[in-house]
Amino acid sequence: MTKEELSNCYERIRPYIHNTPILTSSLINNLVGAELYFKCENFQRAGAYKIRGATNAIIQLSKSQQEHGVVTHSSGNFAQALSLASRNLNIKATIVMPSNSPKVKKNAVLEYGGEVIECDPTIEARQAAADMVVTNTGATFIHPSNNPDVIVGQGTAGLELLKVHSNLDYMICPVGGGGLIAGTALATTYFSDRCKLIGGEPKEADDAYRSLISGKIETNTTTNTIADGLRTQLGSYNFPIIKKHVKQIIRVSEPEIIEAMQLIWERMKIIIEPSSAVAFAAILRDKQHFKNQKIGVIISGGNVDINNLPF
Amino acid sequence: MTKEELSNCYERIRPYIHNTPILTSSLINNLVGAELYFKCENFQRAGAYKIRGATNAIIQLSKSQQEHGVVTHSSGNFAQALSLASRNLNIKATIVMPSNSPKVKKNAVLEYGGEVIECDPTIEARQAAADMVVTNTGATFIHPSNNPDVIVGQGTAGLELLKVHSNLDYMICPVGGGGLIAGTALATTYFSDRCKLIGGEPKEADDAYRSLISGKIETNTTTNTIADGLRTQLGSYNFPIIKKHVKQIIRVSEPEIIEAMQLIWERMKIIIEPSSAVAFAAILRDKQHFKNQKIGVIISGGNVDINNLPF
Repeated sequence: MTKEELSNCYERIRPYIHNTPILTSSLINNLVGAELYFKCENFQRAGAYKIRGATNAIIQLSKSQQEHGVVTHSSGNFAQALSLASRNLNIKATIVMPSNSPKVKKNAVLEYGGEVIECDPTIEARQAAADMVVTNTGATFIHPSNNPDVIVGQGTAGLELLKVHSNLDYMICPVGGGGLIAGTALATTYFSDRCKLIGGEPKEADDAYRSLISGKIETNTTTNTIADGLRTQLGSYNFPIIKKHVKQIIRVSEPEIIEAMQLIWERMKIIIEPSSAVAFAAILRDKQHFKNQKIGVIISGGNVDINNLPF
Repeated sequence: MTKEELSNCYERIRPYIHNTPILTSSLINNLVGAELYFKCENFQRAGAYKIRGATNAIIQLSKSQQEHGVVTHSSGNFAQALSLASRNLNIKATIVMPSNSPKVKKNAVLEYGGEVIECDPTIEARQAAADMVVTNTGATFIHPSNNPDVIVGQGTAGLELLKVHSNLDYMICPVGGGGLIAGTALATTYFSDRCKLIGGEPKEADDAYRSLISGKIETNTTTNTIADGLRTQLGSYNFPIIKKHVKQIIRVSEPEIIEAMQLIWERMKIIIEPSSAVAFAAILRDKQHFKNQKIGVIISGGNVDINNLPF
């Protein structure tokens, strides 16, 4: 995935995405002792950065592939993103969702024009249901994080941030399935000569932390984290990029995630989901490391049930 | 209060305030059938527009007045605003707060460097305590809403909005003590030849609505509203301006306020306080009236206890 591919992808998807605001807070800067630039993908269409990769993956399909539609399995932000991206591009999207997904998430997919197919809540049942859609309709399967076009698309958030703040010392983002951090690695590698990339990850779903140590993809031993977007696994396309370019992964506890989330809500007056708070929590955990540095923080999304908050 | 006074005030306070972002949401525009431009004073310093008027009122004092400090009575956003504005300008602020004010509000004042004096929770006790500070220290009393310098200062939020969007058909803001809407009236009158100003007010604290009908200041018969910033009364400086320039006041019920607040939280991913939701609730209540219009909406603040939400 070259610099040119990232630039071309950005031009390709621009009409379909928001160039989201970059917010700062002097209160938070004082608290951390550094300059933080929050790239607010919680204000992105469908409430998360995922629409970037979804849009790119769809546009890259051939005309005949597009005519047969796309399918994915997701109970989270990629489900909504692929539905909205498909509607924007006039193609059909089918989303396989576990039968225990919250009703509000199914409704969001339906609202964006996606078709929902329910399955048993296991990885195997999800993949089997998606495979069935591919077989029956000729739709193309788009993986939420382990797909090269998705990875490049997700990298455009970091690219937008570096276009405005070219002198960042660090960029930090949450690590779940690995699509965002791998894409962001392309942005920092190709568009900065100094910006070091760090991942934030819940201790309760630390596959990336352990994978970087062992040098091969490790699986999560628990996924008992409030950061519901980060319970997923690294994949074969994104792990080699992460291994090559990510400097460090900082793990954070559940109370640290909740505290970071509450701080951003109260001080910045923006709604972020727990997964987004993981990146900021990593900075708070290791303040000394970041002292006086310029840090880009990717706020990945804002899709949270406001009737069911952890504080 | 002339056009020049408003312009001069803006130049005077600019170093001490944020030029807050103006956000839009295609989801909300589709819902309303109009173009809404949200001026996000929830992102303002100390979390509300109040710092604008507080800063202006302090700068307008003489050197000798400034040396004796300022005092106000407020349990809300003006208490924090006057404390922070005073700290920015190196003068002393004393805030009279009712003894039943939430601890979090007292702490916020202390955090910004204000001194807190507690009193019984009645209007009379508040004023008596403030008078005592004036007598004992020579401090200048700054009223939260019925002070000409405060009114002009609050008008700079609408001014900033009109500088970016000069072709608004409507501006709408919440009505409490009358400082914001009177200031905004100066902005729409002097800086637009077409923008009509409308107020949103809770039915449960509708003094402004009734005052516009009777032509004289009416008092609230109840203040039983979740919009805690709007329980206050119009005053002698702001009412004549409101009477002259405000086209209409739309009253909204408590469920309408909560619904509007939840919509903005969920769709725009920003944290606004109930008082701010009143302006948007007024638009939702009278959608037909606003069809296809360009509307500026002043989001007055974001200071809300996230541990105690109405949804």
